Amino acid sequence: MKLSALQTARYQYAPKLPAVLTAKLEQIAIEAGKPTQSMANQAELKELFKHTYGKPMVNFKKGKNPNAGKKLRVGVILSGGQAPGGHNVIAGIYDGLKKGNPESKLFGFLGGPSGLIEGSYVEIKDKFMDEYRNTGGFDIIGSGRTKIETADQIAASMATAKKMKLDAVIVIGGDDSNTNAALLAEHFVASGMSTQVIGVPKTIDGDLKNDMIETSFGFDTACKTYSEVIGNIERDANSAKKYWHFVKLMGRSASHIALECALQTQPNVCLISEEVEANKMTLRQITDYLCGIIAKRAENNENFGVILIPEGLVEFVPEMKILIAELNDLMSVKADEFNKLAGFDAQAAWLAKNLSKASADAFASLPAAIAAQFLMDRDPHGNVQVSRIETEKLLISLVEEKLKAMKKAGTYKGKFSSYNHFFGYEGRCAFPSNFDADYCYALGFTAFVLTNAGLTGYLSSVRNLTAPAKEWIAGGVPLTMMMNMEQRHGSQKPVIRKALVELDGKPFKAFAKNRDVWAIKTSFVFPGAIQYYGPDEVCNQPTQTLLLERGIAKPAAKAKSGAKAPAKAAAKADKPAKAPVAKKAAAKADKPAKAPVAKKAAAKADKPAKAPIAKKAAVKADKPAKAPAAKKAAAKADKPAKAPAAKKATAKKPAAKK
Amino acid sequence: MKLSALQTARYQYAPKLPAVLTAKLEQIAIEAGKPTQSMANQAELKELFKHTYGKPMVNFKKGKNPNAGKKLRVGVILSGGQAPGGHNVIAGIYDGLKKGNPESKLFGFLGGPSGLIEGSYVEIKDKFMDEYRNTGGFDIIGSGRTKIETADQIAASMATAKKMKLDAVIVIGGDDSNTNAALLAEHFVASGMSTQVIGVPKTIDGDLKNDMIETSFGFDTACKTYSEVIGNIERDANSAKKYWHFVKLMGRSASHIALECALQTQPNVCLISEEVEANKMTLRQITDYLCGIIAKRAENNENFGVILIPEGLVEFVPEMKILIAELNDLMSVKADEFNKLAGFDAQAAWLAKNLSKASADAFASLPAAIAAQFLMDRDPHGNVQVSRIETEKLLISLVEEKLKAMKKAGTYKGKFSSYNHFFGYEGRCAFPSNFDADYCYALGFTAFVLTNAGLTGYLSSVRNLTAPAKEWIAGGVPLTMMMNMEQRHGSQKPVIRKALVELDGKPFKAFAKNRDVWAIKTSFVFPGAIQYYGPDEVCNQPTQTLLLERGIAKPAAKAKSGAKAPAKAAAKADKPAKAPVAKKAAAKADKPAKAPVAKKAAAKADKPAKAPIAKKAAVKADKPAKAPAAKKAAAKADKPAKAPAAKKATAKKPAAKK
Repeated sequence: MKLSALQTARYQYAPKLPAVLTAKLEQIAIEAGKPTQSMANQAELKELFKHTYGKPMVNFKKGKNPNAGKKLRVGVILSGGQAPGGHNVIAGIYDGLKKGNPESKLFGFLGGPSGLIEGSYVEIKDKFMDEYRNTGGFDIIGSGRTKIETADQIAASMATAKKMKLDAVIVIGGDDSNTNAALLAEHFVASGMSTQVIGVPKTIDGDLKNDMIETSFGFDTACKTYSEVIGNIERDANSAKKYWHFVKLMGRSASHIALECALQTQPNVCLISEEVEANKMTLRQITDYLCGIIAKRAENNENFGVILIPEGLVEFVPEMKILIAELNDLMSVKADEFNKLAGFDAQAAWLAKNLSKASADAFASLPAAIAAQFLMDRDPHGNVQVSRIETEKLLISLVEEKLKAMKKAGTYKGKFSSYNHFFGYEGRCAFPSNFDADYCYALGFTAFVLTNAGLTGYLSSVRNLTAPAKEWIAGGVPLTMMMNMEQRHGSQKPVIRKALVELDGKPFKAFAKNRDVWAIKTSFVFPGAIQYYGPDEVCNQPTQTLLLERGIAKPAAKAKSGAKAPAKAAAKADKPAKAPVAKKAAAKADKPAKAPVAKKAAAKADKPAKAPIAKKAAVKADKPAKAPAAKKAAAKADKPAKAPAAKKATAKKPAAKK
Repeated sequence: MKLSALQTARYQYAPKLPAVLTAKLEQIAIEAGKPTQSMANQAELKELFKHTYGKPMVNFKKGKNPNAGKKLRVGVILSGGQAPGGHNVIAGIYDGLKKGNPESKLFGFLGGPSGLIEGSYVEIKDKFMDEYRNTGGFDIIGSGRTKIETADQIAASMATAKKMKLDAVIVIGGDDSNTNAALLAEHFVASGMSTQVIGVPKTIDGDLKNDMIETSFGFDTACKTYSEVIGNIERDANSAKKYWHFVKLMGRSASHIALECALQTQPNVCLISEEVEANKMTLRQITDYLCGIIAKRAENNENFGVILIPEGLVEFVPEMKILIAELNDLMSVKADEFNKLAGFDAQAAWLAKNLSKASADAFASLPAAIAAQFLMDRDPHGNVQVSRIETEKLLISLVEEKLKAMKKAGTYKGKFSSYNHFFGYEGRCAFPSNFDADYCYALGFTAFVLTNAGLTGYLSSVRNLTAPAKEWIAGGVPLTMMMNMEQRHGSQKPVIRKALVELDGKPFKAFAKNRDVWAIKTSFVFPGAIQYYGPDEVCNQPTQTLLLERGIAKPAAKAKSGAKAPAKAAAKADKPAKAPVAKKAAAKADKPAKAPVAKKAAAKADKPAKAPIAKKAAVKADKPAKAPAAKKAAAKADKPAKAPAAKKATAKKPAAKK
């Protein structure tokens, strides 16, 4: 195997550990709290998890460890999509095991959970482990998406665990995989088996977090990798001054990645799916919002920009959500009939007959190439593969159409040329940042200590992550504590609740506070490539999301972009293209929104020549009684000399629908 | 302006200079060689460049500098596409000027050459300059693609230069821009103006190089940025083990970027446009080649891989080249008629009538979405915008079709799922690598010294780049020395010859030697993100291309992938999917190729069930008399225990058409 210079160098990196974990194992004691409750549906969950429900939180502290030196046999599984740092989790487990007792053994199940079901594994030894330290990827043992769900699968897993005499199985995975881990832990105990199950919170999507899990591993590295290339594209856009770049970002349903990248790079637009859903924004309204900004920038002769789009967006747009649901239903019921159709035209004709009128219209309104993506690549259950839909191209197509109309109407005078990008696979297997390298190693070592203590049904938890690593707090969170009941495939299932972007959370608020300035006044930030060496502030900082959530940073919120040239910013901001408050604005209007909002705004507008969104702001300024906030903004904008005016004008928290 | 931590840190970086340039200006002497000749068409060029043809090469050495201390007024232009390091070129010029005489002034023309024509500029001063040191982008003064060609444009440029009392104009650009610089230098002298013109070799494409210009700036950083994300995708592919990634890479006509990235990351396939052209490979043959490798890997249960595709590929495929030429001609003659057509179907019907039969067939064979790209986004001259064609999707579509057929025929048993990527804008404005930061600063400083010496019509040249910076050689190359006459827009024009990938050059040979192993045996290398700090071998290495061309390195050529498990590799390589030698193989066949080669091979095949390319190799092994090389390969493959067998078997230099 040929190694890159960086890979060779990274082998030398010694991940940092919380101080408590650097002690001798004999001196790492377990401190247990009070029994815990699940976050909801306590009665049902208590019933479902008879043996593992309600365990206490545990933390590690300096003290006497009666279990030190135990000889253990542990199996580890990588489950689901790749995330940078997975190899270091395994290294942390491995080093912990060997530190505890050199005769302890670590086995890696091959290809994900199916490795446990099928009894397919390798023993991990020194030399093998060393080849993967501080590297990206899950290639050490491979990953997979099989779930251990059916009675047969569970029985097979038990058989493997018994045959291998495993003291524990450690599952490195996301919310689904850890839900699975919780069930497995329960089954093992219920069957009288001694094999413990410990989870480790993985996912670049950042949607496995809560009070006790500050972030999932991989999110840091993935976001930094995407932000590197987004920043590069921004600098290119600002140099060439002629392209709009539409950048879709991985992240599944949640917009954490898009939001974090926006905080790191300050693009002109970042759509947030959770906000689109809260405001029930249609594709039309999103298009109007984008075109308003594009037109406004064109007025400043800036026919370029960068727009971030979360992967899951299309699922959150009302008409698309319904269309997707109908397609999924239809395919599951009439799959055979559909599969017989030859070609897209035949499929489209068939759908026109079988979908509801609204969905048929929505489908027909899509560009053919995009519409085809709703039908291709369905998953094994016949579901539309949302991640395959080129939302970025869809939006470009809708924007082009709208801008043409605006040009005709005289409300847009710019030039529009665009490029689309999708970043996802670029970041899942990057060399973990120092943060992820340390965090993952600590998570792995913690998983070992939990195992060593004889615990089961716990998620490895390392907290206080914005402090130096030595001050991190390590312990375990009962898996059932993070669970609730949700509707899945037609019935109520126990699941770990997925964390979506909270519209009243600090990261979103920091973004919302600044975005109207970023939209119009080019405020790009260029993070550059992840650095593993060099100054501390360059190579050892956590994400903006984490800093904001933990109340440490004053990052994007302190954006100097506005501060530097406040007069100019204020002058330009007199009619800021408002962020997606279309819905709320409509709600405040006298007549509930039947016609598209922009249209209604236009109808009320005194100056119909303006772009629809900017127009709306203008309209509000003309009719101050109805929209007090906008009025205040407009009023302040009259006094451009006041430094903070532009900022305040745009500081309204627009989104969260009550 | 909010700055990232890296940007702030990079401000502190002091670019390295060749030792000769670190001396006091009084001690930097000019050493001139003998008069030079243009690389071809000497008589015509001597006639066209009466005043500037045939100047001597110049080098700097320690000695007496009679011009030290001159007060100078210099204008600088960024021309064409962005390349990392442009800001450092300007910093090098600036620091040189101020070192020479603090009262010297540097002006930056805004938005490219049009800034000179229109007299639009800013004076660059300390604080302004400092904001851009060691950063990516061309945003300091912007760039543009206007050429100074017409009599009016030249007259306007002269007027600006006179009005500003410029001692020199420094043009930072690629082959076209420097051709322009040469013409401007000649015009200035011919008109009796004292304003000198000096060029600086810029372009990420790497196609501005020759004996005196070892590499253009930006190539290093761009390739490293692309290789970072390609490596990450490779690691993801090898972890998930279920996707083929088709990655198109910027680079215009030349495949330098794709080749360099292949040497850095060892993908399964890297197509090289120059080889495709030399072998006159059709889309069909390229598809067969790809499918052969995909099928072979499927046999090893490896239904994943990474394929690199140079941006210009489609221009080099015979039938596409002709199609594009016909479309360009047609659009320039019948643009009005074409522009009246409404919608793609009408356009396609019209083309079917107006193109040659062959091109109409070629057009009709394209998937509709791709075909539409041949018609959209034409440049101002009506030319097809080749860079807008999604060659990566075209190939996916053709591969899918072919694999379906192979599956039916029983010659392919794998699963094929793919993703497409296009990397270009991600790399043009990255923070320059240490190499590019140093190289650019040295190029800029050199441009200043040439200016200070009163020279004109020179390209800044910094050589010996694989040595430490202090050993670099600095000087100037007469622009006319790199020129020849080429057909442009219907007439012979003087141009700097574009450097394409040489099929008998060391970088290509190093790649060709290894690619058959890389194709089948996963040999990915993961370069990771560009590092600016840390170990020397991690953050200060030049490109593989440069190392190989300068005969320094033993990089990919020494690929340990083959060496590590030679027996296994040899065993797997018994029927290697041969690299694109289809053409040559056909040439060796008795009957000149009318039918597609693969078909013909199949016709001769004893074992028709095999995949077409692998089959061909098999066929050759059965009929040793006709294809001696393949025979030798097959023969050696019978002895898998011999370590270098697999390597030798694939070490044949397949490509260069004689």
